[in-house]
Amino acid sequence: MTQAATSIEPQDLNAPELRDCAVNAATGRAPFDILLINGRLVDVATSEIRDADIGLVGPLIASVHPRGNRSDAAEVIDLAGAFIAPGLIDMHMHIESSMCTPRRYAEVVVPQGTTTVVWDPHEVGNVAGLDGVRWATEAASDLPLRVLTLAPSCVPSAPGIEMAGAEFNAPEMAEMLAWPTIHGVAEVMDMRGVLDRSRKMRGIVDAGLASGKLVCGHARDLKGIDLQGFAAAGIASDHEITSGDDVLEKLRAGFTVELRGSHDYVLPGVVAALKTLPHVPQTLSLCTDDIFPDDLVKVGGMIDHIRRLVGHGMLAIDALRAGTLNGAMRLGREDLGRVAAGRRADIVVLADLESFAVQRVFVSGKQAARNGQLLAGTPGEPTTAFTDTVKLAPLTAEDFTLYAPAETGDTVEINTVYRPRFTEWQRLTVPVVNGVLDLPEDKLVMAVVHRHAKRSAQPSLGVLDEWGSWTGAIATTIAHDSHNLNVFGRDPADMAVAANALIACGGGMAVAKDGQVIALLPLPVCGLLSDAPVAETAEALTKLRDAAAGVADWLPPVRTFKALVGASLACNPGPRVTDMGIGDGATGELRSLFDLHQL
Amino acid sequence: MTQAATSIEPQDLNAPELRDCAVNAATGRAPFDILLINGRLVDVATSEIRDADIGLVGPLIASVHPRGNRSDAAEVIDLAGAFIAPGLIDMHMHIESSMCTPRRYAEVVVPQGTTTVVWDPHEVGNVAGLDGVRWATEAASDLPLRVLTLAPSCVPSAPGIEMAGAEFNAPEMAEMLAWPTIHGVAEVMDMRGVLDRSRKMRGIVDAGLASGKLVCGHARDLKGIDLQGFAAAGIASDHEITSGDDVLEKLRAGFTVELRGSHDYVLPGVVAALKTLPHVPQTLSLCTDDIFPDDLVKVGGMIDHIRRLVGHGMLAIDALRAGTLNGAMRLGREDLGRVAAGRRADIVVLADLESFAVQRVFVSGKQAARNGQLLAGTPGEPTTAFTDTVKLAPLTAEDFTLYAPAETGDTVEINTVYRPRFTEWQRLTVPVVNGVLDLPEDKLVMAVVHRHAKRSAQPSLGVLDEWGSWTGAIATTIAHDSHNLNVFGRDPADMAVAANALIACGGGMAVAKDGQVIALLPLPVCGLLSDAPVAETAEALTKLRDAAAGVADWLPPVRTFKALVGASLACNPGPRVTDMGIGDGATGELRSLFDLHQL
Repeated sequence: MTQAATSIEPQDLNAPELRDCAVNAATGRAPFDILLINGRLVDVATSEIRDADIGLVGPLIASVHPRGNRSDAAEVIDLAGAFIAPGLIDMHMHIESSMCTPRRYAEVVVPQGTTTVVWDPHEVGNVAGLDGVRWATEAASDLPLRVLTLAPSCVPSAPGIEMAGAEFNAPEMAEMLAWPTIHGVAEVMDMRGVLDRSRKMRGIVDAGLASGKLVCGHARDLKGIDLQGFAAAGIASDHEITSGDDVLEKLRAGFTVELRGSHDYVLPGVVAALKTLPHVPQTLSLCTDDIFPDDLVKVGGMIDHIRRLVGHGMLAIDALRAGTLNGAMRLGREDLGRVAAGRRADIVVLADLESFAVQRVFVSGKQAARNGQLLAGTPGEPTTAFTDTVKLAPLTAEDFTLYAPAETGDTVEINTVYRPRFTEWQRLTVPVVNGVLDLPEDKLVMAVVHRHAKRSAQPSLGVLDEWGSWTGAIATTIAHDSHNLNVFGRDPADMAVAANALIACGGGMAVAKDGQVIALLPLPVCGLLSDAPVAETAEALTKLRDAAAGVADWLPPVRTFKALVGASLACNPGPRVTDMGIGDGATGELRSLFDLHQL
Repeated sequence: MTQAATSIEPQDLNAPELRDCAVNAATGRAPFDILLINGRLVDVATSEIRDADIGLVGPLIASVHPRGNRSDAAEVIDLAGAFIAPGLIDMHMHIESSMCTPRRYAEVVVPQGTTTVVWDPHEVGNVAGLDGVRWATEAASDLPLRVLTLAPSCVPSAPGIEMAGAEFNAPEMAEMLAWPTIHGVAEVMDMRGVLDRSRKMRGIVDAGLASGKLVCGHARDLKGIDLQGFAAAGIASDHEITSGDDVLEKLRAGFTVELRGSHDYVLPGVVAALKTLPHVPQTLSLCTDDIFPDDLVKVGGMIDHIRRLVGHGMLAIDALRAGTLNGAMRLGREDLGRVAAGRRADIVVLADLESFAVQRVFVSGKQAARNGQLLAGTPGEPTTAFTDTVKLAPLTAEDFTLYAPAETGDTVEINTVYRPRFTEWQRLTVPVVNGVLDLPEDKLVMAVVHRHAKRSAQPSLGVLDEWGSWTGAIATTIAHDSHNLNVFGRDPADMAVAANALIACGGGMAVAKDGQVIALLPLPVCGLLSDAPVAETAEALTKLRDAAAGVADWLPPVRTFKALVGASLACNPGPRVTDMGIGDGATGELRSLFDLHQL
């Protein structure tokens, strides 16, 4: 595995003059730049907690030495008993889930102690293709957060039954893997494709193995011979952990587990299962996967994950080791993941190991954050690219009207998508009035409008059952995974109003009722992200969710806001409305509303 | 850190057709090539021992699955309850210490379960320079043993007071590091040079850091600020562990420790110290460093180290993890160090976890050894290179006679080297008879003859004190580190006989008494190695050691056979006879016999 590094790191640590200074400082012949005193070091190599002072020179840790031994530094910071750990390493995540640009993401998570993330920009890839991924690597550079970008491997997620903004096959994967700013193949999700050696997956995994870079996976519900086959193919990691038994099986199968914090209900069982082992394996790392913007701001990402793991019974030292050294080893980054002389000064200072309140964060030797605030202000430049990714002319109510086919009589039989999430094909006989389907009140129209200008922009209409009775419309250009413009509603006029609000602002989410837009969350970058501060986006999202709750008919855990953005996830089994019709990820079939599925 | 790999590995595992076969076999659609049944897997990731069958396809492990689940394979091997572990990884060693060529070394250690070694060929480098290191990488290729060769960093070990066959400065280091067959900088030993930022060491370490490859160290007796400084310079490993306190300090300093088996008396304290930690750190790896050929054959290398560690109280699972996965992670080799699907089938089968008797060894999926024998016979080709490295014409008794300077009277005062190992400068007043020094019986003459044709071949003569009373002469071209021709004795005629035996056969060790050669160990490759089977070399060494004991005056632990080959180790403090005179590694001074040191 080649070194996972930005195009400059870790060579920035290796200038001989810098090493001169570090050696001289360590041996007492020169002062430190920064000296952290009176702290308690969480030593992730030995799993001890011990008093130690830390001397920094430039981006390096020059010395870890007994408390009080030195006092000579340009800046002495008294940690007053606080705990020192390496900066946290998030081993699998999607910035897009937080609906913000990389610089805004960094602005939030660096003060939380996250200093490195491994980003799979597959939403951006699905919308904006190779150019989008290239933009992602550029937007991720020169930030106080180290973003190691991976190449999305499953674009689109369900070829043949939906169309995204791009298609990545082996040649595209090989091209991305050749960039120094790409560190490997992002979560390979088409498990069946890998196991059946489909041409696409075979080529993509082959490109990954040939590159020598990371080949990461998504092994949801894989076990037994399928899990072995997935590993045999060369996939080396997984984050789709569903239980204690599952984490043990995957660790035993040799995977690096990227244990995610996004599914908290899984963690107690996982922690309990890990306790049955002699010690927490070095192949267990941590990640966040997806975090909504409000959660990111309110409770945090990696730091909250660690807090919860400890709350569920994991030892703090083990959680911190998993979130630092174990990830660094998987990444092949000797400069990261341990607070020791010669390594990079990515350091988080914690008030204690229960609340995990973050007092200070150092990134490459510079104090980057203090008490929850980034010290240098918002990093990076505003994003002006990819703000025109909703390539549509305004729509009308007619576009969302369920017209019956020409020769239809008084009724027509249609396919319906029964139930959110775990969908089933069903049929419905619907009256036809003046050439238009007269849907029962408890049925919902779902429209998917291809917005990437690669095929017809004529809305594809479907009918959902068991989504309750709605009084308005919700439109979204976050619609996993192809991120077309999805509109849900009853009234075609409301649906058009909501859709047009997004067409006008470049994408996002909108709620319409009685012909008016009542809430709007603009996400103009790729129709997925805002370059506004995350807290602002979080607030707008909260308002939008409230408005959505006012028009939709939620019934947790079945009918939820989150189910909305995943309603079009065509790679899953069962019928899904896509821009191409009603597709089924398991069977591969594609049908129109009137082309009846064989039940 | 770039991937530590031979020029082909690990890409040999990544052919898509191979991966097809592995996936198909894992998922039950095709048979395995080899199926190991009824074994007990030592899972170094989870630290469990569990029943598991292992299916191999080509060089890959395709599947690790419950006992009895499969029976379809071209070859089924019933392990009958034996233990399965990954092949052992020796993280720091010198093939030369076993006095054999790489292929002969492989012949012995592969049946012992060692499948990867990290070789510092600095003896070869000292004799034969860059060409020698290049030969080393070639001789190390295409063997059933994976040899990852490093670039020697301290050639010669004491520039200015001795001359070896080569000098490696930063340009030579950079050149070696550019070869795909070189995996990093070998043990940096000039600790003072690193800490003082000497031009040479600064350049060498800089070249190492710039290459992105391993930068390994030798941190003998370093502690406190010097240890921190050594780490700050970028040195990331150490094998010179002297005690439990020392291993803890080095682990805490962030080093990868390469715990060596060669100093057994250290291990009980180290094992006890490790037990004070919550678990054995993932930064603890194992190595052998130096093993004489007889020990290598009789008790073994890595497997004996593990056996002894367990005997001293380490858990077998921890010793095996240290000797496999932990090393693989330091090397950045995801294909090594764990028995899991998708990884390389380097596997050792052990009868039990106390005797560690090795039943079978698989290397890249092929059964390479069974019950202590290599199955395919001696690997590689005989070595014909570097058999002319004793570049000397025959010598005479006059060459070894202590002539007094011209103007000397009845006596002359000379420098003596007092005491083996921990030497001190002393003076001696010696009678002069017929222009020749008349040494007391209990003084020993040591001659060092430069043999690399880079300076005068006139023997440099010194006088050793406290080496007892000898009755013959011993000559050796193993003479750390410059490996000139060293001759020890009383009678110049015996010394010439012993020396000439080695000049005639291309180097090795010889004992002479009463004007005859009474024992000879030819080591014609570089004057350091034999291409004979190690057992033969071991036997010849035993005979030579017996003969040496008959002419020398050993008094363990002070005066020993081993002290002989280290008598010229000029980088150590105190006086040493070198080819250039009497040098002192601490002060840098260089004197002749008659140029008196200021006491």
